[in-house]
This record gives sequence, structure tokens and C-alpha cells, in this order.
Amino acid sequence: MHFKFPNKHSAVLISLLSLGVVSQAATNEPIQPIKAPTDINAGQAELGKKLYFDPRLSKSGYISCNSCHNLSMGGTDNITSSIGDQWQQGPINAPTVLNASLNLAQFWDGRAEDLKAQAGGPIANPKEMASNHTLAIEVLKSIPQYVVEFKQVFNSDQITIDQVTTAIAEFEKTLVTPGSRFDQWLEGDKTALNDTELAGYELFKSSGCTACHNGPAVGGSMYQKVGLIKPYQTNNPALGRFDVTGNEADKNVFKVPTLRNIELTYPYFHDGAIKTLSEAVNTMGEIQLGKTFNATENAQIVAFLKTLTGEQPQITLPILPPSNDNTPQPQPFN
Amino acid sequence: MHFKFPNKHSAVLISLLSLGVVSQAATNEPIQPIKAPTDINAGQAELGKKLYFDPRLSKSGYISCNSCHNLSMGGTDNITSSIGDQWQQGPINAPTVLNASLNLAQFWDGRAEDLKAQAGGPIANPKEMASNHTLAIEVLKSIPQYVVEFKQVFNSDQITIDQVTTAIAEFEKTLVTPGSRFDQWLEGDKTALNDTELAGYELFKSSGCTACHNGPAVGGSMYQKVGLIKPYQTNNPALGRFDVTGNEADKNVFKVPTLRNIELTYPYFHDGAIKTLSEAVNTMGEIQLGKTFNATENAQIVAFLKTLTGEQPQITLPILPPSNDNTPQPQPFN
Repeated sequence: MHFKFPNKHSAVLISLLSLGVVSQAATNEPIQPIKAPTDINAGQAELGKKLYFDPRLSKSGYISCNSCHNLSMGGTDNITSSIGDQWQQGPINAPTVLNASLNLAQFWDGRAEDLKAQAGGPIANPKEMASNHTLAIEVLKSIPQYVVEFKQVFNSDQITIDQVTTAIAEFEKTLVTPGSRFDQWLEGDKTALNDTELAGYELFKSSGCTACHNGPAVGGSMYQKVGLIKPYQTNNPALGRFDVTGNEADKNVFKVPTLRNIELTYPYFHDGAIKTLSEAVNTMGEIQLGKTFNATENAQIVAFLKTLTGEQPQITLPILPPSNDNTPQPQPFN
Repeated sequence: MHFKFPNKHSAVLISLLSLGVVSQAATNEPIQPIKAPTDINAGQAELGKKLYFDPRLSKSGYISCNSCHNLSMGGTDNITSSIGDQWQQGPINAPTVLNASLNLAQFWDGRAEDLKAQAGGPIANPKEMASNHTLAIEVLKSIPQYVVEFKQVFNSDQITIDQVTTAIAEFEKTLVTPGSRFDQWLEGDKTALNDTELAGYELFKSSGCTACHNGPAVGGSMYQKVGLIKPYQTNNPALGRFDVTGNEADKNVFKVPTLRNIELTYPYFHDGAIKTLSEAVNTMGEIQLGKTFNATENAQIVAFLKTLTGEQPQITLPILPPSNDNTPQPQPFN
């Protein structure tokens, strides 16, 4: 399989090195460029891609990982909260899968330590894919081409949920988005951003946004209370880390989301209630920083945020191996 | 854009020609090889691919053409009848989009004369995507990158439903599946089928299956009554052509479905009630031909049918242009 991550930004850096102008590369910034993954197990990732797109991991035979983390749409579903089995409304906005490998933990409340731990959750969640791990494995074991491919990849006669989540996580590790205009700028191409975008970045830093939104993913590296300065008004009952730890201090503490590709991953916040970037910037200023941005400042920050859209992973749609006569039937309507 | 249809079968034919053994090529068969499409408007097809994968054409923002005609799964959803807006159960089994350009008309009852006429239906069907053409166009007009791309492709400042369905149909014309083992055999490679498969093909012809399942699509070229010899028992209320024409003689008359890629397009029949190829062969023998196939004959025909799986279209997942602040919001839950 091919993972194409054009290395234009590295090429730029090397050119600058050879010209002796490397001092222009931004080395003291709170945000670092996204790097293409280097240690991918290609066999696992290719199998994982099939599983990621395979709706037979759901009870209905209709919902796949890609249904809510749609790789045509910034790795999200672009709706307030996701649609699950029987059209149930999910409890929270689906976070993007893009660059998720850079998060300190998975889910808004960080209840899964990594991508592998996350991947098993939705399959067995009665409000999401509504299957269970026993049934999902039974389905996969009944499909001859999967049996062959699991054996090739894991060198085992068994198919286990551990292998399934390992493969899905390996595929997800490939879903990074280097090459954004902002990363080109970070790596020394000072023409990559215009004055408005640069002003937005300076404001983003000087206002304190980078206290939380920092690192390669511009987020994902810590937990923070939503409503630090002023409470965030929401009908969503999720309490963030409190739901994991039970500690009173963890109420309304959520993982800081990545801002990479934020132009693509609307609507915003854990409740998906914020529809536009402009509204998101104003609300964050108000509740997290106690700041009111004027219209010009707001537009500058929004312009900067749009430079964080990276090269989207080029995915060749997998052709799924057909079910066998004895494959458990999907149950969409009962 | 690239449409890759490896021309292995043509290469084989040319080799045979040069060896003077072209007389082995099957010229008097009732089934002809699938040809790659030649007159594709690449711009329209690339735009059409985006639209095909864009769930914003649905009211919920969740359902796209690919939801029910999934190009990972033989161009179908592999469930009895499709899931529509609010998880409504569709009235009939979703036919494959693969090679659909070869059908004499579209839908099981042929109520749409071509792919373009078909494409507008599900968008506005309250049981399917549940949008309407006015809203769908309003959504597309609000998305800057679509405005640019429609202008490039159609050289017009307007976006119309006619353009939308033209583009989707153009993309669908690319979804053909040449290169099956059966086509290799038809084109002269006598090693492409084994004895069981060949026996199955001979039986398929001698039993009368090719009276309806013929031509390049092995179907799709005529209407026929289901239950010609013996009534087909079903709970599905669809009456086929009768629902279009009102003629009593058209009751239970449906378009003969293509058998191309039939291994991938389960479950079978217009009601999706037949789960396996083996059951489909026995039922068709019984109700259409008045024949009972024994176990060996059934296995032979099934083996032949599995040689009709062609090269599946290689689709690079489109990256959809993001919505704008003024794009009408999807309404998944109200």
C-alpha cells in the first residue's frame, strides 16, 4: 500500500539550510509541524483500512468507523452529535480521527488511553454500532478472505478483537495531515501566510490560546476545564474527566481538541453547538480567556485557523471481501 | 482524474491473435465482455464523484449515494432493504450501481429512463435522503469550492439539479467492472475457467437462464415476470412495472437484474429475501424455469456465477469542500 505524504515542507527546509537561511525557520514557536508517520506496519494498516470501512462490524451492517469519522469530511460527520444504530442520537460531537494519534488519550474525556483502546468502544456501544466483540469476531471469522488476511498479517490462526483494534489503530496512525500552509510557514517559507493570517497567529499567541492549543496537533496534549473564566452554557450532560475519575475537580474538564483541519471539522465544542469558526473564537475568548475580540481580531484568528488545514490522507476505497453463506446476517430492523 | 481499467483481457486477446488462435475467442455466446467506458467527461465525473459521496445532499447530512450503493461492497448495501432518513426501512433491495449504465432503465421497475433520471430520485425521497432539490441546490450554492467547480465543469454561473444529476450520472458511467475471469474466458483465455465453472456455464445456458440474463451485463436488458412458472412468495408489496404502467399484465414484472459481481451484491431478488447464491439459483430454477437443480448442478452454476466478479472500480475517496458559515444546517434529529 502507498501512503503519500508529499514532503514539500521538508524540501523547503533543506533548500533553506543549503542557502544558509535556516534561522528563518520558526524554532521557538508553541506549535510544531505535523510529521508523516514513519513506523507504520503496512500489512496491519491495509487490513485496518478494510475494517475501518466495514459496516459488518455493526449490528445493522450499515455503520462503519467511517460513518462518523468520515475521511471525506475531515475525519468527522459534521453534525452536532452522531447518528447511531436505529438513528439514536449520540451523546457528544464526534472528534476527528485526523492526527488523533497525537492525542494524549482518546475520546473527549480521555477514557481510552490510545487509538487501539478506543477502536473497540463504538463497535460494542449499543448507541453506536450496537454489535459486540463476540459477534464482530464471528462475522470476520466467517469471511474467507479476512481469515487469509488476518493470518498473513498476524501469523495466527485466530482472529481476535485485539488484532482487530490493533489493525484499525495502525491504519488510524497513517491519518495525519502534514503540509498545511501554517506548517510551511513554520518550516521557513515566510510567504506561506499573508498578513491577516500572521496577525491572527500573533493574536492567537498573545491572547493565551497557545496555553492549551499547542504542540504539533495544536491541542490534544492536555485536559482543560471548559468555562475557565465563565461557565459554558450547554444542554449536553457530559461532564468530561469527572465521568472517568469521579473527582469533583474534573467536572467539565475535557481533552483540549486539536485545531488541525478545524475548517473541516465543524460544528465545534464537545456538544457540537457552535456552528462557525467565528463563533467558536468569540466563545473561547469569552469563557476561557475573559477576552472580547473585535470583528477584525476575530477575522484574523479565523484566517489563521484556516491555515491549519493540511494535506488530507489520500485513501483508495477498500474493496471489502464478500460475506460467506454462513456469515451472521446483519440485523438492521430487529 | 484517472480511471484505471487494467487491460489484461485485451492483452490476452492480442497475444492470441498473434498466435493465430483467435478462433478460440467466444463470439457466439449470449454474454459479451464488459467494456471500459470510452467517452467519459472527466470533469463532470470528478465532480459527480464528490456529489456521490456528499451526505449534504440529504436532510440529515448523513446519507449519501454511497450509503446504499457502497462502492466498497459491490455498489450495494448488502442488507435486505436500505436504511433511509430516521432509519426508515426502504421498500425494496438496493440494486447495484456497478454496470448500471448498461441497464435499459433504472430502478427495479424501470421508472427512470437513465442514470441521470435516477440520480434525482433518492435525494428528494422522504424515505431515503429526505431532502428536496431546492434545498440541495441551496446547500451546494453556499459552498465556495462547489461554486468554482460547477462553473469550471458546466461553464455557467448557476448550479442546477440538472447539472447535479448529469455529474452524478457521468461518475456512475465509470463504474463498470471489466476483466472478470468469465470475460477473460470469453476473450479467448480458455484456462480462465475450471471444469466446474464451465459446466455451470453450460448448464446456465442449456437451462434457459440466458433467455433473460444475457448481454454484457448478464441482465439489465429486459423486463420479466418474477414467478413465470410458479408464483414467487414474498411479503414485499412492490408490483414492478405495474406500479409504472398500471397495466394488469405488468404485475410482478421487474427489470431483470445484472448478474455481474453477483457474489458481492447479496442479498438477492427485489425483496432481498434470498440470502445465498445457492438459494437464488434453486429458487430461480423453480419459479422461472420449472427446473429442480440437484446439488452438483447448483454448485456448478454458483461456481460459474462467481466468475462474473470483475475488477472493481478503484476510487480515491474524494475530499469534500467544507460548508460555509451560511450553508443550511443538516437536520438529523428534527
